[in-house]
Amino acid sequence: MADYAPMPATMMHMPMTVQMIMRHGASVFPDSVVADFDGDRVTHTRYGEIARNAVRLANLLRDLGVRLGDRVGTFSWNNREHQEAYLAIPAMGAIMHTINVRLSTEQIAFVINHAEDRVLIVDAQLFEVLAPALPLLDTVQHLLVVGAGAEPVSGAVHSHDYHKAVSQQPDDYPWPTLDENAAAAICYTSGTTGNPKGVVYSHKTTYLHALASRATDTFGICEADRLLLLPPMFHANSWGMPYSGWFSGSDLIMPGPHVQPDKLIRLIGSERPTFSAMVPTVLGDLLRVPEEELDMRCFRLLVSGGSAVPPAMIEAVRERWGVPLLQGWGMTETSPMCVLSHPPRELEGQAESQWRAKSGRPVPGIEVRAIDDSGEPVPCDGETVGELQLRGPWVTGAYHGIDASDSFTADGWLRTGDVGHIDSKYFVQLTDRTKDVIKSGGEWISSVDLENALSAHPDVTEAAVIAVPDERWQERPLAIVVSHRPDLGAEELRSFLRERVARFWIPERWVFVDALEKTSVGKIDKKRLRERRDAGEFEVLRVS
Amino acid sequence: MADYAPMPATMMHMPMTVQMIMRHGASVFPDSVVADFDGDRVTHTRYGEIARNAVRLANLLRDLGVRLGDRVGTFSWNNREHQEAYLAIPAMGAIMHTINVRLSTEQIAFVINHAEDRVLIVDAQLFEVLAPALPLLDTVQHLLVVGAGAEPVSGAVHSHDYHKAVSQQPDDYPWPTLDENAAAAICYTSGTTGNPKGVVYSHKTTYLHALASRATDTFGICEADRLLLLPPMFHANSWGMPYSGWFSGSDLIMPGPHVQPDKLIRLIGSERPTFSAMVPTVLGDLLRVPEEELDMRCFRLLVSGGSAVPPAMIEAVRERWGVPLLQGWGMTETSPMCVLSHPPRELEGQAESQWRAKSGRPVPGIEVRAIDDSGEPVPCDGETVGELQLRGPWVTGAYHGIDASDSFTADGWLRTGDVGHIDSKYFVQLTDRTKDVIKSGGEWISSVDLENALSAHPDVTEAAVIAVPDERWQERPLAIVVSHRPDLGAEELRSFLRERVARFWIPERWVFVDALEKTSVGKIDKKRLRERRDAGEFEVLRVS
Repeated sequence: MADYAPMPATMMHMPMTVQMIMRHGASVFPDSVVADFDGDRVTHTRYGEIARNAVRLANLLRDLGVRLGDRVGTFSWNNREHQEAYLAIPAMGAIMHTINVRLSTEQIAFVINHAEDRVLIVDAQLFEVLAPALPLLDTVQHLLVVGAGAEPVSGAVHSHDYHKAVSQQPDDYPWPTLDENAAAAICYTSGTTGNPKGVVYSHKTTYLHALASRATDTFGICEADRLLLLPPMFHANSWGMPYSGWFSGSDLIMPGPHVQPDKLIRLIGSERPTFSAMVPTVLGDLLRVPEEELDMRCFRLLVSGGSAVPPAMIEAVRERWGVPLLQGWGMTETSPMCVLSHPPRELEGQAESQWRAKSGRPVPGIEVRAIDDSGEPVPCDGETVGELQLRGPWVTGAYHGIDASDSFTADGWLRTGDVGHIDSKYFVQLTDRTKDVIKSGGEWISSVDLENALSAHPDVTEAAVIAVPDERWQERPLAIVVSHRPDLGAEELRSFLRERVARFWIPERWVFVDALEKTSVGKIDKKRLRERRDAGEFEVLRVS
Repeated sequence: MADYAPMPATMMHMPMTVQMIMRHGASVFPDSVVADFDGDRVTHTRYGEIARNAVRLANLLRDLGVRLGDRVGTFSWNNREHQEAYLAIPAMGAIMHTINVRLSTEQIAFVINHAEDRVLIVDAQLFEVLAPALPLLDTVQHLLVVGAGAEPVSGAVHSHDYHKAVSQQPDDYPWPTLDENAAAAICYTSGTTGNPKGVVYSHKTTYLHALASRATDTFGICEADRLLLLPPMFHANSWGMPYSGWFSGSDLIMPGPHVQPDKLIRLIGSERPTFSAMVPTVLGDLLRVPEEELDMRCFRLLVSGGSAVPPAMIEAVRERWGVPLLQGWGMTETSPMCVLSHPPRELEGQAESQWRAKSGRPVPGIEVRAIDDSGEPVPCDGETVGELQLRGPWVTGAYHGIDASDSFTADGWLRTGDVGHIDSKYFVQLTDRTKDVIKSGGEWISSVDLENALSAHPDVTEAAVIAVPDERWQERPLAIVVSHRPDLGAEELRSFLRERVARFWIPERWVFVDALEKTSVGKIDKKRLRERRDAGEFEVLRVS
């Protein structure tokens, strides 16, 4: 039998880059707008002007010495200028580093030095937060300050007025030809242990994530949308909306720092967004606003993630606002879109909240498996739990500049640190973080399920469950509860749980607090809760 | 200023392949179905079983000597087994060659020899069409015949019963690790001049096209869909539906050869599809079915392309069926999704047919430009015409095994051979094929616009306009009309046109015929019309 020569594909090699995203929005959707909120009024800027400013910003950065592969940091809320940076920095071949403004001064200095940022774009209103870190910086040479009111900086770092400097630049730029595998942006995870770890997105993965976010079965981002960017643009690229939205011609609604319920009421009322994503805490805040003050019927879809969304909250969103709530499981490492709780079609409408309360199914492009202690995949029976592992074209395979091989398997899957099971329809259900697992007398207790069950009580505002050592059972759950009813007690909650969870899951140890500490991205900070437990700071009530 | 080392992206390299598409459908949507129509009854097969058969088919092909990079041809209508081939052949690292069964015997032999197919999968009911080509084949060693009734083949080619041979194979396969840039499938264009030219899709471009087809603003392919695959699977992969649908868990409705209106009435009535794509000819056939016999309200969207869709047809679809009709401009070379006529959002609902009647805007990922005779882009003013050129990650950059450099520009864009203009919203309007352009006294007359205007007449079934030489004006339009009203005459049509087109466009030369010849993919065959014109076969009526 003759051998055949391999047949090459004939397709053109057109690199998938942020340049393409930028060009498409600018040429096809010049009249779509970016809406900026100052807490009181909204200013609209057309894509055409944003694109022109991005060209000028690229020229300015080049004047300041930024070359291919250099890092430019942003220290900004969600606003128009941040969108300009999202386009200009990767398109000119530099790398955008979105800095989490909620980190500590030491962490801020750490990530800027670790990324070796050369220029920082800083909101004037965040200047005070950044200032204490300035003396600790090794590589930064220029600050571009957006807005008035920042102190001039002396010493080695030169400070410029962003708007003034940008406006003096020319309106064209010799965009370089880029490799689609080149770095486009870096985002550090807000690790609850150790130093933040950098995930470096490439042009290709940024492009793919934008393309995938446009699918009807994922976020369905489209031209008719007005996206409310509640997740910070320094947190997994605000779930990719600055790119998926721009690529699709959606209006982008930028709240700046004004994400408190009273401000959002005003912004939602005037801008009528159709889509947003938020952590459950923000969703809970909005649900506590009296119905007559907040009209949410403009939304076609809301997505919530970052931590498990209690089923009661999903019900409340549907009943109160008539809006479907999608649960999303994702992370900085996954760009972040990964698993979404769209109900399977045969159950659309029926028992929907039951499905939406699961973490969801992997979106096309993402693969998930659950691995047991012996390294084998567990059966997809909706019961057997294992460590959840991921792979896909927009998932990270490493961290910047550190050895983190224990975060990946030998065959190249990302170890998520989450534990869960998968059912026959490939619905993934997270039951715990690896380190949150409670093993009581040889049986696993899901802290997530216990938290959900507690949150379903009408008088519980928030709840967290962590493990405590126990002589007899090795570990037992400790329930930490925030309630707005002063007389709510452990006995009442134990009765409430009795109908909802296995008997051996019901905690004997209870703590009632005024608030739960949150991480810089709004998740309940279990690391801090465990520290307080170890320091004996909790007043634990024991019942049985 | 210090030099910075380039920062590599940290993202995992997960090749985008047909394997991923196959795995996703099989694991997440095992209960979605492929519906097979035999002209009378429909058989449903679950994705789970299709995926198992694909594994067995891969084993069978390996047994028959198929190795990485080898070509396997399909000579089939749209059916379940064709879907199995779509998955198995590329996933095993071989290359699927979908053969246009409407080619001439010589062309069939040409494409099979040119692609060097080693094995052919053939529908028994198409065996008679293939048989005369068999003695002309150089490389084919095995035939897999789907269904009963085919003659056994003697000589060097071995013939096997597809179902019997597949069923004896094992249920697992050692899928190889594939390069995403490797060839996945080859499709020959039905060139109206010269030999068919092969476009070789890679795994990556196939994957990207499937991902892009899921966007709300493109085809919006999703799990809730039931896709009616009217475009043949040998024509630009049935517009990608076997992949975008499988990736999304849509049901796939396979009409086999039964695409005549009376058969489609039955199929649409029982299967209730939500989405389909078709050439204007098929759409016209369906529009002529009496309303009470055909219920099209199950469709959420219809797409038509292949040739220009007359505005009157778009109106009729909306009025009669209440279904939005999208016009699509694409080609084998573009996988084929490229330009779609979604109205811009500010005009959604208003004057919609006016927008939908334009060819449309490039979908995110595709870039279009119009180039004038001096090689410069024309302004986006909606008037100035130029040659339309394309690029994008799922556009071809060459043809298989031939030098076709005149089809591409020096800077890498595909020259489409279409002429048109682009407006300020980036709506592209095709006015002609390069070779169809009519230049009359130095002014261009659009054959497409004239055809649309003629088609708007209630008694015109179809119309084509071609150029004829003219002593005074160099060229003038010749109108060739099919009408169902025997007394319809040129004078009436000229009056009708007077309100619709510029006066100098109105043809003086008219031909009335019973039918217009079509190409193998259902387009009006202008090449044939020109031949008949040159041979003096038309009885031309002159009026002025």
